[in-house]
Amino acid sequence: MTQAGHTQFSTPEMSAIFSGGSLVARMLEFEAALARAQARAGLIAEEAAKAIASRCNVDLFDVAALYRDAADAGTPAIPLVRMLTERVGGDAGKFVHWGATSQDAIDTATILQIRDGLRLLIGRLLDVAAGCGALAERHRHTPMAGRTLLQHAVPITFGLKAARWLAQSTRLVQSLRRLQDHALVVQLGGAAGTLAALGSAGVSVMELLAAELKLGAPDLPWHTERDRMAEVASSLGIVAGAMGKIASDISLLTQTEVGEVTETSTGAADRSSTMPHKRNPVEATAAMACARLALGVVPTVLSAAVQEHERAVGGWQAEWQAVPDLFRFTAGAVEWVHRALGHLQVDAERMRANLDLTRGLIMAEALTMALAPSLGRPEAYRIVQRLSDRAAQTGTHLKDLAASDQQVQSALGRDVIAKVFDASTYLGSTDALIDRALAGFRTVRE
Amino acid sequence: MTQAGHTQFSTPEMSAIFSGGSLVARMLEFEAALARAQARAGLIAEEAAKAIASRCNVDLFDVAALYRDAADAGTPAIPLVRMLTERVGGDAGKFVHWGATSQDAIDTATILQIRDGLRLLIGRLLDVAAGCGALAERHRHTPMAGRTLLQHAVPITFGLKAARWLAQSTRLVQSLRRLQDHALVVQLGGAAGTLAALGSAGVSVMELLAAELKLGAPDLPWHTERDRMAEVASSLGIVAGAMGKIASDISLLTQTEVGEVTETSTGAADRSSTMPHKRNPVEATAAMACARLALGVVPTVLSAAVQEHERAVGGWQAEWQAVPDLFRFTAGAVEWVHRALGHLQVDAERMRANLDLTRGLIMAEALTMALAPSLGRPEAYRIVQRLSDRAAQTGTHLKDLAASDQQVQSALGRDVIAKVFDASTYLGSTDALIDRALAGFRTVRE
Amino acid sequence: MTQAGHTQFSTPEMSAIFSGGSLVARMLEFEAALARAQARAGLIAEEAAKAIASRCNVDLFDVAALYRDAADAGTPAIPLVRMLTERVGGDAGKFVHWGATSQDAIDTATILQIRDGLRLLIGRLLDVAAGCGALAERHRHTPMAGRTLLQHAVPITFGLKAARWLAQSTRLVQSLRRLQDHALVVQLGGAAGTLAALGSAGVSVMELLAAELKLGAPDLPWHTERDRMAEVASSLGIVAGAMGKIASDISLLTQTEVGEVTETSTGAADRSSTMPHKRNPVEATAAMACARLALGVVPTVLSAAVQEHERAVGGWQAEWQAVPDLFRFTAGAVEWVHRALGHLQVDAERMRANLDLTRGLIMAEALTMALAPSLGRPEAYRIVQRLSDRAAQTGTHLKDLAASDQQVQSALGRDVIAKVFDASTYLGSTDALIDRALAGFRTVRE
Amino acid sequence: MTQAGHTQFSTPEMSAIFSGGSLVARMLEFEAALARAQARAGLIAEEAAKAIASRCNVDLFDVAALYRDAADAGTPAIPLVRMLTERVGGDAGKFVHWGATSQDAIDTATILQIRDGLRLLIGRLLDVAAGCGALAERHRHTPMAGRTLLQHAVPITFGLKAARWLAQSTRLVQSLRRLQDHALVVQLGGAAGTLAALGSAGVSVMELLAAELKLGAPDLPWHTERDRMAEVASSLGIVAGAMGKIASDISLLTQTEVGEVTETSTGAADRSSTMPHKRNPVEATAAMACARLALGVVPTVLSAAVQEHERAVGGWQAEWQAVPDLFRFTAGAVEWVHRALGHLQVDAERMRANLDLTRGLIMAEALTMALAPSLGRPEAYRIVQRLSDRAAQTGTHLKDLAASDQQVQSALGRDVIAKVFDASTYLGSTDALIDRALAGFRTVRE
Repeated sequence: MTQAGHTQFSTPEMSAIFSGGSLVARMLEFEAALARAQARAGLIAEEAAKAIASRCNVDLFDVAALYRDAADAGTPAIPLVRMLTERVGGDAGKFVHWGATSQDAIDTATILQIRDGLRLLIGRLLDVAAGCGALAERHRHTPMAGRTLLQHAVPITFGLKAARWLAQSTRLVQSLRRLQDHALVVQLGGAAGTLAALGSAGVSVMELLAAELKLGAPDLPWHTERDRMAEVASSLGIVAGAMGKIASDISLLTQTEVGEVTETSTGAADRSSTMPHKRNPVEATAAMACARLALGVVPTVLSAAVQEHERAVGGWQAEWQAVPDLFRFTAGAVEWVHRALGHLQVDAERMRANLDLTRGLIMAEALTMALAPSLGRPEAYRIVQRLSDRAAQTGTHLKDLAASDQQVQSALGRDVIAKVFDASTYLGSTDALIDRALAGFRTVRE
Repeated sequence: MTQAGHTQFSTPEMSAIFSGGSLVARMLEFEAALARAQARAGLIAEEAAKAIASRCNVDLFDVAALYRDAADAGTPAIPLVRMLTERVGGDAGKFVHWGATSQDAIDTATILQIRDGLRLLIGRLLDVAAGCGALAERHRHTPMAGRTLLQHAVPITFGLKAARWLAQSTRLVQSLRRLQDHALVVQLGGAAGTLAALGSAGVSVMELLAAELKLGAPDLPWHTERDRMAEVASSLGIVAGAMGKIASDISLLTQTEVGEVTETSTGAADRSSTMPHKRNPVEATAAMACARLALGVVPTVLSAAVQEHERAVGGWQAEWQAVPDLFRFTAGAVEWVHRALGHLQVDAERMRANLDLTRGLIMAEALTMALAPSLGRPEAYRIVQRLSDRAAQTGTHLKDLAASDQQVQSALGRDVIAKVFDASTYLGSTDALIDRALAGFRTVRE
Repeated sequence: MTQAGHTQFSTPEMSAIFSGGSLVARMLEFEAALARAQARAGLIAEEAAKAIASRCNVDLFDVAALYRDAADAGTPAIPLVRMLTERVGGDAGKFVHWGATSQDAIDTATILQIRDGLRLLIGRLLDVAAGCGALAERHRHTPMAGRTLLQHAVPITFGLKAARWLAQSTRLVQSLRRLQDHALVVQLGGAAGTLAALGSAGVSVMELLAAELKLGAPDLPWHTERDRMAEVASSLGIVAGAMGKIASDISLLTQTEVGEVTETSTGAADRSSTMPHKRNPVEATAAMACARLALGVVPTVLSAAVQEHERAVGGWQAEWQAVPDLFRFTAGAVEWVHRALGHLQVDAERMRANLDLTRGLIMAEALTMALAPSLGRPEAYRIVQRLSDRAAQTGTHLKDLAASDQQVQSALGRDVIAKVFDASTYLGSTDALIDRALAGFRTVRE
Repeated sequence: MTQAGHTQFSTPEMSAIFSGGSLVARMLEFEAALARAQARAGLIAEEAAKAIASRCNVDLFDVAALYRDAADAGTPAIPLVRMLTERVGGDAGKFVHWGATSQDAIDTATILQIRDGLRLLIGRLLDVAAGCGALAERHRHTPMAGRTLLQHAVPITFGLKAARWLAQSTRLVQSLRRLQDHALVVQLGGAAGTLAALGSAGVSVMELLAAELKLGAPDLPWHTERDRMAEVASSLGIVAGAMGKIASDISLLTQTEVGEVTETSTGAADRSSTMPHKRNPVEATAAMACARLALGVVPTVLSAAVQEHERAVGGWQAEWQAVPDLFRFTAGAVEWVHRALGHLQVDAERMRANLDLTRGLIMAEALTMALAPSLGRPEAYRIVQRLSDRAAQTGTHLKDLAASDQQVQSALGRDVIAKVFDASTYLGSTDALIDRALAGFRTVRE
């Protein structure tokens, strides 16, 4: 009975970045870089550094055995250092992991994984944004009902909805890039954060290590000050929430009664055998599930920030599972939204038909605004209120009631009345807002 | 780069119960039982049921391929039913999954996994309780400091502390057994919960299915009423929290400055190479990490209970990952606590020495109670308060101050004073409480 | 600038039960009962107990001053005991809070609040259930679309949907009653849980106290074993989730495009001035907000269960805010669902119209089942699949295609075809399931 | 029975910023600014704007009545606009809330509260940082045990611990300032985010409104794109977690067995009457409770980000309670940490004494490093390992064993050995790291 199971809660790329083997590879990268940094600082011989680096290759290690020992040791760094020391051997072996502590290796390795994970996420978010941008352009003038509390309010365009998704996606990219700027720092503190075993060279080794790994050098070691990790976690949670918002909109629009968009997948895999009419929003659903899972992990990381003294009892270790899970689930959410956007078929006709479901009432505000200049706003209000009530009671279209109303007719005339009830004339700043969203996106797309 | 990674956040047994292959096996068990139930109800032929059941063997299926298709289909039941229908073939094949919906198969399969998971957890919790019970008996009279807000309060015994762990573990077993009684029910509703495809036989098929699987028959199909699943999740979270409490106590007692217990592991795996004195509470730490992870998943399941109409968009699907995760992490927490208890070395001498750290002040309440009968409580209070302040200022032992105080001496006499400062004389109902905990445990241990 | 603010996240009744003044009143009830129990046990004089009880009246206390002192003292019990001792005065004053610790008073007071809170919730849940029951009866035969992943699946009746809400509400009542049976226990342990100050009478005083307060006596003091509190919290979270489910269904049904139910509020308070057609689901929305807030508090209480030694540093104190919040928000959710159900107007005509939105495709499964006996299932499938595809492409009603199909016509005849497309003939066990839900409710309604 | 209750979970200042009355005042500020912006844009008359602004004074409103109506209306903006329109009266009254929607007023008002809340938090965090900075300077050379997994590891200084707290506090200030830069934007979208009622002037009114309120102008209206709100929430959660870390360290250091710091409060409020020796870490405990409560609210806001279409059903409304709660609890956490730091008494002597608890084993790594240059690292290791084992078994001080060891003696000499066992000689980069933390703080303190 294998472990193989559900694959829709991540992507293969993100799973690879955060696999157990990958963590070992990143720890080895840390050990190699540390040795080189110490050679550069004159603490160990150049040859020792080279000997160490030459063994820092994950293919030389039995990863499964390493993790078995890790469970007893309490950390994968202890068996890793032992195994690496054996493989290096000789005098150089004595300088493996020199002056560092387990947490230095694990935290730095995790930061390297996070670096790759963020890069992947940003790339895919840019794809999502591009997808939204294309929809915003294409459906800039496709009117649809704006819905508040799930009720028709006033018209919008589908382009504007996509532009709001786009603007948020753009902000997410900016937010993840800010994170890249200040959260990707090495960890090097030694046994209790003093770098004591490195004598007076500690800080400079930390900086050389950072340079080797092309990461930032932190102000101080941060073994038990986890604000950066918490910020990574919450940033991903915010991405997941934003993907959930898009997926939620799509799923609501696919409802049988709404039918304004469809996810057209390539195959027939998602067709029910007995209910051939069903077009399940499979991708939006998967995105929602991933978003929920990702959001669920965020508090685990945030609350883990209350850590004891110079190394935590449980809070830090929980991150080993939680941070990879968070990246995996978030990647899943982004991926499914990306696919859903790619497959989205927009039914502009249905949007237009739905706009008319309230028989003109969705244009009541527009009618009031049109009457206000000539009749004064109070009178305009009074009239529209009266006509709207009648429309609601009788089921007559508000436009017809307006057209046959003396006051309205004399104030506006038949043509203007018709125009008022054309949703495309009551879209306010929609165009300008779409432009703003597109312009914002251009600044992050490079 | 393999997926292999951290192993300490679960146990092999629990991971097997909730593996992807196991879910498929359980879905097949559902399909076989459904066919048999329908044969018993006269809906399908006995031979068809036999033909179907004979193919419901996970070894006949390509599990990895099934999950690949599942991601596109939105559920693993769709490819499973397709594959099973192919394998059964012929006329019988047409009756595979007859009248059922994907969610019927998945939910029932999950309930079967939960049944096994609960059984495993209860068994291990009984082991934990037995471990606590042994400590409660052995250390019934081992005095130690009771600590409130991490400060010494009055004496307790280590047996009482273990008895409180025991009492809670006993209640957890009772709670999980209540869950076994009412949460383990089949799911069978058909496409939208009416059992329409089964004509008028729906309810009786549901009951026959339950009998086949030795599960309960629910009042109604519960596709989007997830209270039972939420109760499973929160019960596990409560187990995790309770394990966290024991692990937290252990880790606090292992502190270098406290040193009252040690986890003595078998090997040297957890010994630091450069800090030979360190005895890291590796097991308690792993238990804490697992407990945090488990607690983190609970809200994902609870908030997923807000499900749409007759099948949810995301909330249900998130359970597929969250429920197995929750069982895995909780099993990890229970396992690590069990190991820690098994390895626990209790240093009764250090407990006694720590009791004296406040130089008798921990017995101030006891002294007051001893003086009260002869001097009256107000006067007793006044005296002890005065002596305690002096003791705190001068660092003299309160017993010595008491012994040299005229009033105290004449009220109690030297021997009684000595007895008052013997922590074992001021343990109140400790013995009776330990007995209650042990008696409670006997009722669940069978 | 007053504190007055949003009122919709609770009810006045639940807010009163969990007010600051009420907590003080409950602590005084504890102190009075403790004194009486100790008098019964012969530990203190009858007169002392009477004198103490006579002052245990919250109106004699400056509650605001008490809470100001509480912040410095770390607990409201310290100033309360001081104030009560002053008010009682004399010798009797010395026996106030005799042998108890702050947490004994606060935990027992909280349990008394929880007792009242549960009673209130159960009462209101029974009202919700009654509301669902009435809908289940009235709309037992009101057909509507069953919706899975927000797509039309097969027909159900609105009565069945209400019956599922009812069945879940019934289970919630049962679950809260189980909680009443085992979670409502006094707390009495003294300074560190040994009841040392009560000599050998500790356990019997605990039992007498329980009898005085009509609460249960716990197996052991539970200062830092919070499983009962966690169970209370999660049970409320499950109630909140269930209310969220009903509210979610209602809000989805009120959508402009669906329009199957409306919340008809009494006044015009929720009518938009410029959008007279809008009928916002205000009550369902408030219920959803309350449910989210309640669900948000659950993990705070669950994770607080990891408590240190004999009194926690923060975890316990967080409960003081979290548990009242949880009861308040949950009460809000139940109340708003109750109101929404009371105001619900069901548009059976619209439900019927919506059923036809797929032009008969929602009956495809029914048609297959009808053809199967005469044509065999494989052939029936094949035909319906073909007709359904044609229906979807051409927009012709499936019934018409069926009626004009040779094979179908000869197999079923015109009248039978018409009957097949009558949703009310394809409801399977709907009636029986509604009966089960109603019967289940009768067992809890008394 | 009044609502008055626990006061320790917030501060009066933060409670005032987020009171119900304050929200109304801020909504009025929005309405006044909107009118002025529209006058500037030429949409309404200058006099109308003045008339409106003159009535935008919370003292003219019955706040309690407003919130009563708000519960029925579903939002406080509806009764507010109605009341304000009445108070303004005449023609000007018709221009109240012109072109805006309820959510515009509520969201902008909330942003104004958040602006004030962030300012308050940053100020108090700077005080916390200053407190840490003072401790870092004063105890720069006060050696203490570094503790990993609660076990002694190698020496650090208390100044370094405080410097780590400081560095994290500095980063929190920077993070909240980044938030001030990009999260404080107005909300103005009109009924469904198109600004339709403002014709073509929508975007410029939005920008003028932002200028009036000295807030930013967003790219697009963000009614249902809540990433900024989620970022505010998670930033506060990170602050809360960081405060929890400091409080956790303090509470662990106050343990009777550790006794390295004490919270010396001014009064005797927190002294137990019967346990005069107890010095409860009341402030650290309150900080921990607040931190837990704050962390508990974060996921409520993050998961609320999945919002429907153009206005959410429940997710948005939940923010009304959650965001104020989050600010209140976080303020409480910061305040209690600030007080604890202010009252902290550091017992340098006890720190030194505790350093010797392992009888020199805490210096094993230091001894190895000292021997390495002359004996070579492998031999140095071997010797120290042997001596350490002997020390652990016999209880002899490692220094004495080292001093009487031939090899060690000849390699180092008596004086050097003594120096090796002086913790202050094995502090590595401690000084430099403290300097970095102090320098970092100077950059944010201005």
